[in-house]
Amino acid sequence: MKNYQNYKRGYYMPPVQCTDWVNKEYIDKAPIWCSVDLRDGNQALIVPMSLDEKLEFFKELVRIGFKEIEIGFPAASETEYEFCRTLIEQDLIPDDVTIQVLTQARPHIIEKTFKAIEGAKNVIVHLYNSTSFAQRQQVFRKSKEEILKIAVDGAELLNKMADEYGVPYRFEYSPESFTGTEVDYALEVCNAVIDVWKPTPDRKVIINLPATVEMSLPHVYASQIEYMSKNLHDRENIILSLHPHNDRGCGVADAELGILAGADRIEGTLFGNGERTGNVDVITLCMNMFTHGVDPEIDLSDIPSLTEMYERVTGMKVYERSPYTGKLVFAAFSGSHQDAIAKGMKFRKEQGDGMWTCPYLPLNPEDIGRKYDGDVIRINSQSGKGGIGFILQTKYGFDLPAKFREDLGYTVKDVSDKEHKELSPKEVLDIFQNTYVNIDGPIKMLENHFVQGDGISTEITILKNGVKKVYHGKGNGRLDAVSNAIKKHFNIQFKVVCYEEHSLQTGSNSQAVAYVGVETVDGKVTWGAGIKNDIIDASVHALVSAVNRTGDLN
Amino acid sequence: MKNYQNYKRGYYMPPVQCTDWVNKEYIDKAPIWCSVDLRDGNQALIVPMSLDEKLEFFKELVRIGFKEIEIGFPAASETEYEFCRTLIEQDLIPDDVTIQVLTQARPHIIEKTFKAIEGAKNVIVHLYNSTSFAQRQQVFRKSKEEILKIAVDGAELLNKMADEYGVPYRFEYSPESFTGTEVDYALEVCNAVIDVWKPTPDRKVIINLPATVEMSLPHVYASQIEYMSKNLHDRENIILSLHPHNDRGCGVADAELGILAGADRIEGTLFGNGERTGNVDVITLCMNMFTHGVDPEIDLSDIPSLTEMYERVTGMKVYERSPYTGKLVFAAFSGSHQDAIAKGMKFRKEQGDGMWTCPYLPLNPEDIGRKYDGDVIRINSQSGKGGIGFILQTKYGFDLPAKFREDLGYTVKDVSDKEHKELSPKEVLDIFQNTYVNIDGPIKMLENHFVQGDGISTEITILKNGVKKVYHGKGNGRLDAVSNAIKKHFNIQFKVVCYEEHSLQTGSNSQAVAYVGVETVDGKVTWGAGIKNDIIDASVHALVSAVNRTGDLN
Repeated sequence: MKNYQNYKRGYYMPPVQCTDWVNKEYIDKAPIWCSVDLRDGNQALIVPMSLDEKLEFFKELVRIGFKEIEIGFPAASETEYEFCRTLIEQDLIPDDVTIQVLTQARPHIIEKTFKAIEGAKNVIVHLYNSTSFAQRQQVFRKSKEEILKIAVDGAELLNKMADEYGVPYRFEYSPESFTGTEVDYALEVCNAVIDVWKPTPDRKVIINLPATVEMSLPHVYASQIEYMSKNLHDRENIILSLHPHNDRGCGVADAELGILAGADRIEGTLFGNGERTGNVDVITLCMNMFTHGVDPEIDLSDIPSLTEMYERVTGMKVYERSPYTGKLVFAAFSGSHQDAIAKGMKFRKEQGDGMWTCPYLPLNPEDIGRKYDGDVIRINSQSGKGGIGFILQTKYGFDLPAKFREDLGYTVKDVSDKEHKELSPKEVLDIFQNTYVNIDGPIKMLENHFVQGDGISTEITILKNGVKKVYHGKGNGRLDAVSNAIKKHFNIQFKVVCYEEHSLQTGSNSQAVAYVGVETVDGKVTWGAGIKNDIIDASVHALVSAVNRTGDLN
Repeated sequence: MKNYQNYKRGYYMPPVQCTDWVNKEYIDKAPIWCSVDLRDGNQALIVPMSLDEKLEFFKELVRIGFKEIEIGFPAASETEYEFCRTLIEQDLIPDDVTIQVLTQARPHIIEKTFKAIEGAKNVIVHLYNSTSFAQRQQVFRKSKEEILKIAVDGAELLNKMADEYGVPYRFEYSPESFTGTEVDYALEVCNAVIDVWKPTPDRKVIINLPATVEMSLPHVYASQIEYMSKNLHDRENIILSLHPHNDRGCGVADAELGILAGADRIEGTLFGNGERTGNVDVITLCMNMFTHGVDPEIDLSDIPSLTEMYERVTGMKVYERSPYTGKLVFAAFSGSHQDAIAKGMKFRKEQGDGMWTCPYLPLNPEDIGRKYDGDVIRINSQSGKGGIGFILQTKYGFDLPAKFREDLGYTVKDVSDKEHKELSPKEVLDIFQNTYVNIDGPIKMLENHFVQGDGISTEITILKNGVKKVYHGKGNGRLDAVSNAIKKHFNIQFKVVCYEEHSLQTGSNSQAVAYVGVETVDGKVTWGAGIKNDIIDASVHALVSAVNRTGDLN
C-alpha cells in the first residue's frame, strides 16, 4: 500500500522496561470511574447537547452510580458555563458526587473556571496542557522548559485561587497528548505539578495520563503507565488516572492493561462516545469485569433504557456490534451456534449451579435487561433445527421431536433463503402451523369414535373430494386403529415411526399438541402435527396431517 | 451490580508462564491475511449475501490483495455449495489466490466438501471441532478422549480424501472455542492432528487458534498463543493462525499481541463484521501497521469505495467511530483540536520532510481516499477560530487576520449554538459574507477617486438614507484619506488598527479581498471585508464595511 513510508511510530518507550503488570491476570476490583460524556463525549457530537439534554444525561450518570463526572469546560463557552451554574444553583449534584471541570493552564480561563464552580461542594479542577513532541514543535513552537512552565504556573494559580475562594477543591493534572510525549519528560512535568500541589492523604492529587491519540500497541501504553506509576512523587497520595481513546481500536485494552500496570481511575464514556474513534467505553470495561465475576460498581442492569436515552440526546447510534450493547451481539443466526446455545440453556436448567457458562453467550442477556426473544436466537437461511426448535419451544411452547425439528429447519431455511430475509418468531410459527399442523387435504377428518374391546375399533368420518364417508378400522391402540382404517380404505402404505404429545398453555385454553412421523414405502419420513382441545383428537389430526403431507394420497 | 457472582473466568492459563512477547514493541511485518468475510461475516448477517453479492465481495477481496479467502461451508447449504462451484467453474479464482472451505469433522460433510472443491487449483480445507470445557460438558457430553478422537478421525479422513482425489490441498485445523479450552489439552489435540497430517516445508499445516468467544484480557490470550507456538510439533512447518472475535472489545489487541507471541497468520474481516461483536477488523490491523511505517500488504487506498460496496452487499453500516473507516474518525469539532490541526498542516507545508506527524490526526485521510473537506474540520458550537479559519482558507481561499478569525469564530459558534446544528463549509462562508463582506448600510460607497499630491486626496460619493452626496478628504494614503472623509462628514471616531489584503482565485475572475479592523472610542475592534475586482476598491469597501458594522453610524 502506497505511502506507508511517510509514517513513523510517534510514541516513546519508557527509559527502563516496565512489564511487571504482565504477571497479573485480570482486574479484581473496580477502578474509580469518571464519566467524561458531557465534555469529551459532547464535544465530539455533530450537534452538541442542549442544556436540558445535558441535565438528563447527568441525572442518568448519577443514577447508575458514577461518583465523578466531568461536566465540561465552563470557561470555553456560555453554554458550558450555564450548565455548570444550573447544576449548582438547582442543587442537582448529590453530596457523594464530585463534578469535574476542565481548564487550560491560562490565567483568565482558570479564573473564569473558579467563578463557574462557586458554591459547589465537591469539585475536581482539571488542569491540562499539551506536552507532546508534535504539539511543542508544531502548535506551540515552545521548548520543553517553556511547556513545563505553563503547567507549573497553572498549578500555582490553582493553589492561589483555591486559597482565595477558601475551597479545598481537588486537583487533577493531565499532560495532554501524553502518548506522544517522551515518557521521562511527562514524568518531569507531572512531578513538578505534584510538587506545587503537595498532595496529602486527605486531598490526593489526580494525575491523568491520556492516550489523547492512541499511538502504540496496548502493552506499550501499559509499560509507560507502570513507569509513571513507579516514579511519580508522593505516589501514595496520587490517584493515577487513564483517559484512553480508541484510534487503533485498543482503547479497552489500554485501560485494562493500564489498570494492571498501576492505574487507579478511568476516564471514559458510555458506549465509547468521544473525539474521533471515541473515548474508552466504560460499559465494556464494566461488563468485562462483571463477566469475570467482579462487581463493576456501576449499575448496568438496564442497558436498553440507557441506550434509548443515549441515542436520543446525543443523536448517535449504538453500533450493532458494540460489545454487550449492540443489537446483534447476542444474536445467533448460525445453526451450530443456535444448537449449542439451546443445549447450553438446557444444561443450565438441568444442573444449574446458577453459574453462567453457556456456549457462544458471554453473558446472560437478562442481566443487562435484554431478552432472549428476538435478541439471541434469530432465524435466517443460516439457521437450523436448534434455533428454530428453541424459538418454538421457549416462545410458543412447542417441544418438537428432534427429527421433526430437523425437517422444520430445512423448511424454514428454505423460506428465508428464497425470500432473502430474516424471519420473525411469528413467521417461523406461521410456517410451522401452515405446513404441518391440522392439514386437512386431500382427506379431512370430520369425526372419530372408538370402542374398546379386543383391541380398539374405530369409526371415522372423512371428507375427500367433497364426499363424506364413514370408515371402520381396528388396531392395538387408537392411532393404530385409525392408521389401519386409512391404509385399508385409501390405498396407501405407511407406518407410524414417531408419536409424541404434550399439553400446550396458550392463552386461557389449555390445548394438546401431538406430533406424528410416518414412514412411507420409499423409506421417507413425513411429519404432521395436530392441535386440539382433546389429546386423542390432536393425535388423530397429527396422523392425518402427516399422511396428507406424504403426497401419496390422490 | 446484581448477579456478578454468577460468572467466573472461563479461560485457562498456560501451564507455564509465556511472556517473551511483551519485550517486542511493534509488528514489523504483515502476517498472512485470510478473509473470513464470506463465511463468518456472512453467517452473522441479518440477511446473508446472495450469490451475486458474494461474487462481488470476493472480487473486491482479490482486488485489494487477499491471497487466502474462506468462501464458506459448502457442505452446510446449497447456497454455499453453489457459490463454491460458481467460483471454480467460472474460473474466478486467480492462480495466486487460495480458497478456503470450512468443514466439520464428520465423514459425510467432509465428503461433500471435497466434491464442492473439485477442480480448484489452490484450496485450504479447514477442519474444526469444538474443544472447550463448556461444549464438551453441555453440547457434546463427551470426554476429552472422545473429542480428540473426532479431530483425529477427521484429520485422517482428510488425508484419505486428498489421496483419493489426488490433490495436494493444504489443511487447516481449528480447535474451535480454543479460548475456553484447557491450553495443554488444546495443544494435545493440535499435536495429534499435526501428527496425522505430517506437514512438510512444501505443504505446511495451518493451526488456527480461535477466540471463538473472547474470554480473557488480551495479554492472557497472547500468553496462550506463545505457549502453543513454543510447543506445537513440527513448528517450522506449521503456520500458526489466529481468529479473534471481539466480545470484550479487544479483538484487535488479541491479534496484535498474538502476532508478537508467534502467530503468522490472521483470519478476520473487513470492518470487523462477524458473529455477535464481530471478527477482528483486518482494516484496523492493516492501518495500525501502516501508521507505524510498515506495509500491510493489503491495498486500502480507497476506503470510501470499499465502504460503499460493504454496506450495500451486507446491509450493515460502518460504525461512525470505527477506527480509520468511520465517518467521524477524522472529524475535529473542538476549537483547540481544529487549531492544532491547522497549525500542524501549516508546519507540514513549511518544513515538510513528507512525514505525517499532524496532531490529532493519526493518519493523512488522503492516504485512504478521504478528503479534508467535510471529513476533518467540521463546524458546530464547539468549534473555534482555528477550524473556521482553516475552512475559509483551504476551501475558499480567504486568509483572514488572526483577530478577525477570532471574531468570526464567535459569530459562527453563535449561529450553530442557536440553530442547534452542524454548519457546512458553505454555511460558514455565507455567515462570513453576509456578516462582514461589502456591507453597504447605513452608508454605501458609490464611487471613489484619488489624487496624489501632497499626500492623497479623495473624492467619494456616498449614498445614505436614500441621499447621494459627494465628500472630500485627505490623508497619508488612500485608506487614510477615505477614513478622514468619513470621520469628518459622518460624526464618527475610529482608527484603522489592522489592514491586510490578498488576491482571490475564485472561478475565472481573479478578485481581491481586503480586511480592515477599526477601533472605536470604547476600545472595541470591529471587522469588515471588501471583495472587488480592484484592490483599492476592495480595501475601501472593507473599511466602509467595518465602519458600518460599528453601530456608531446613525
